[in-house]
Amino acid sequence: MTTRSQPLSEDRLDKAMHLFWKKGYYDTSIEDLMARTGLHRAAIYGEFGSKKKLFEALLTRYRAKVTAGRLAPLKTREAAFAELKQFFHQFRDVQAMPAGRLGCLMCLTAAEVSPHDASIARIVSSYLGELRVLFRRASVNSRRRGEVRAGIEVDQVADYLTGAVLGLMALARAPAPRAAVIHYVDGVIGFLNGLQPKGEGR
Amino acid sequence: MTTRSQPLSEDRLDKAMHLFWKKGYYDTSIEDLMARTGLHRAAIYGEFGSKKKLFEALLTRYRAKVTAGRLAPLKTREAAFAELKQFFHQFRDVQAMPAGRLGCLMCLTAAEVSPHDASIARIVSSYLGELRVLFRRASVNSRRRGEVRAGIEVDQVADYLTGAVLGLMALARAPAPRAAVIHYVDGVIGFLNGLQPKGEGR
Repeated sequence: MTTRSQPLSEDRLDKAMHLFWKKGYYDTSIEDLMARTGLHRAAIYGEFGSKKKLFEALLTRYRAKVTAGRLAPLKTREAAFAELKQFFHQFRDVQAMPAGRLGCLMCLTAAEVSPHDASIARIVSSYLGELRVLFRRASVNSRRRGEVRAGIEVDQVADYLTGAVLGLMALARAPAPRAAVIHYVDGVIGFLNGLQPKGEGR
Repeated sequence: MTTRSQPLSEDRLDKAMHLFWKKGYYDTSIEDLMARTGLHRAAIYGEFGSKKKLFEALLTRYRAKVTAGRLAPLKTREAAFAELKQFFHQFRDVQAMPAGRLGCLMCLTAAEVSPHDASIARIVSSYLGELRVLFRRASVNSRRRGEVRAGIEVDQVADYLTGAVLGLMALARAPAPRAAVIHYVDGVIGFLNGLQPKGEGR
């Protein structure tokens, strides 16, 4: 029997996270969460106070447990052109990855919840900001090394690549064939190749 | 006093469509729809039978009233490279357009509802299919005219551009600055320019 004082186990938190990832915030009811985690309503409210507070905690968990691994290639200080390509290449067959058909909980939340809720918008904005910073640093490094043309605008590239992640994750979740996602990633890699000095990359 | 037999006026349908566009499907309650349209519950259920049937009708309305206009440049049989660029260019400052901060109802629904509902997935899939067909035709025309390289794979280009629309509309709705959307569109146009024969487009 679960009591108020027992903290949610890692396994139960993961189950709740996956439920939100699958169904989105609004369509996930407390009853759904109870059924999926085996917890009583009092245990969920006792620990988090509200569905929204639980969701916010799980967004942070998602960032630590899911996106951090995906971003790993870009997280070294010297990440440059090869790491930009590596980052996108890992999603080439995202729909074959575990939970790949679900896309990204953070990207879904950007569209579904962030326009209506300031504190959730801040969490999403912080994540998109991290993406942008990582893309920008890798672009600066690429330019310094001559892997892309000297005239490349790194802010433009960073914003484009951030939006490209949103597009990728939307397409993964949309009713679209796997081939479409593969073609999409090839398009983003084509964009990156197009930044190389003339005579390379085509 | 509204009665069951009175069909929903155009104005009321538009109000209901905008409410779903703003809030998404799951967070829009029948009470919200009643408050926004001034209709009684019986009038909504009497005409449509359910919230879902109303939503499906409004997705079709959205496609006729919103996306059809946006797709106009690509709808002529001879649409080619200039029309591809024109299509994306119109969204360069989408966040300054009326309702631009809301992105696209069809793209939101792709992520929010289509993974869970077969009949809504069919509506979204039909829309994404139309995008793909229009992008593919314009790519074929561009290749035939020599506006892009002869080796371009038109299926890859069409899938990439379809995902690029999802990315654009996600970014427009996300907590991101206007400049980011402008940079994103510039990136997609950069991708298109990169398809041109060598020596052009840079």
